[in-house]
Amino acid sequence: MESSAERLHRQIEFIVEVDKLKEIFRQTVLTQSRRAENDAEHSWHFALMVIVLAEHSNHQPLDVLRILKMVLIHDLVEIDAGDTFAYDTKHMADQHEREARAATRIFGLLPADQAAEFRALWDEFEAKQTPEAKFAAACDRFHPMLLNCRTNGHAWQKHGVTQDRVLARNAHVAEGSKAIWEYAVRMIDEAVARGDLAAKPVS
Amino acid sequence: MESSAERLHRQIEFIVEVDKLKEIFRQTVLTQSRRAENDAEHSWHFALMVIVLAEHSNHQPLDVLRILKMVLIHDLVEIDAGDTFAYDTKHMADQHEREARAATRIFGLLPADQAAEFRALWDEFEAKQTPEAKFAAACDRFHPMLLNCRTNGHAWQKHGVTQDRVLARNAHVAEGSKAIWEYAVRMIDEAVARGDLAAKPVS
Repeated sequence: MESSAERLHRQIEFIVEVDKLKEIFRQTVLTQSRRAENDAEHSWHFALMVIVLAEHSNHQPLDVLRILKMVLIHDLVEIDAGDTFAYDTKHMADQHEREARAATRIFGLLPADQAAEFRALWDEFEAKQTPEAKFAAACDRFHPMLLNCRTNGHAWQKHGVTQDRVLARNAHVAEGSKAIWEYAVRMIDEAVARGDLAAKPVS
Repeated sequence: MESSAERLHRQIEFIVEVDKLKEIFRQTVLTQSRRAENDAEHSWHFALMVIVLAEHSNHQPLDVLRILKMVLIHDLVEIDAGDTFAYDTKHMADQHEREARAATRIFGLLPADQAAEFRALWDEFEAKQTPEAKFAAACDRFHPMLLNCRTNGHAWQKHGVTQDRVLARNAHVAEGSKAIWEYAVRMIDEAVARGDLAAKPVS
């Protein structure tokens, strides 16, 4: 059995290791400087969205603490596996396998009970079956859509993503929150009207 | 009374406004690239520390959800007030006044009930009186000490901060967690032994 001091030592080495999440960059850009957002920033913004928007979940009541734990750890696997762009079908094929290997290594830095707890939270988030995981998935997808809409469709323009693909890729937002999905559909229509998102593929 | 759609609109405008937290830079640097950390990254790392280290709080049980809410919003005031370095006694004089004005504006973007909830959480965090606020304060101070120790004392060296000042400024960590403070004192001793932190002011 580990002593309390040994546990603390392991936990702090884990905390130092995950500092690397701040170096994993995404396709979305910030509203002010327009530089690429990183996973740590996304994770904070996503967690804040959860506490502000929880009342809009289809399912009530929610275990908000469990959602926040999922959110805070959901991207740690990208320290090893890298960020996979939501519209990158080529790299999505082996994404879960790469991320599951990363989960084993990274959560394995913690004491065994916490490693098991965090792995279970990550598996729950990935499976999108519980009310908590569905609401988390809704916010996780809404976040980059919102930033894209406030940065002239930056990531969509860069990668030639069109409205039909945005709607298809994100429709599961409605399983977590019908209200947020209705808001998103209107927001996407407005982005198309402004010319920030193409209505359909250029033929 | 606001409709649910009007509430959601206000909440989302708040979420867009706080994107600015990612542009507020601190004196600490990241372990990998050694660039300055920003407040959004710090807030995420701090929240993760809370869920990993909560067992080491002096007071048990803790309301971890309330701590996480405090942590996620604790630095939003710096969008208007800027980051005040922990050893900058000149700018600490009017820090609370500047930050309280910012709290009124930024939390005021939310629906009134949430604005009041977030303001109460921020006031609780600032007052450091409840077990939750004491543990949050402990992690908030331990975080930059840990990053400084893993980056050759970067911020301490840059600003000529000495061991006596580090110990005096952070001693209240012990009020939240004796275990974390004991770890920190040893870690600081090791930083002095390595030459990353000066033992006393150069006379």
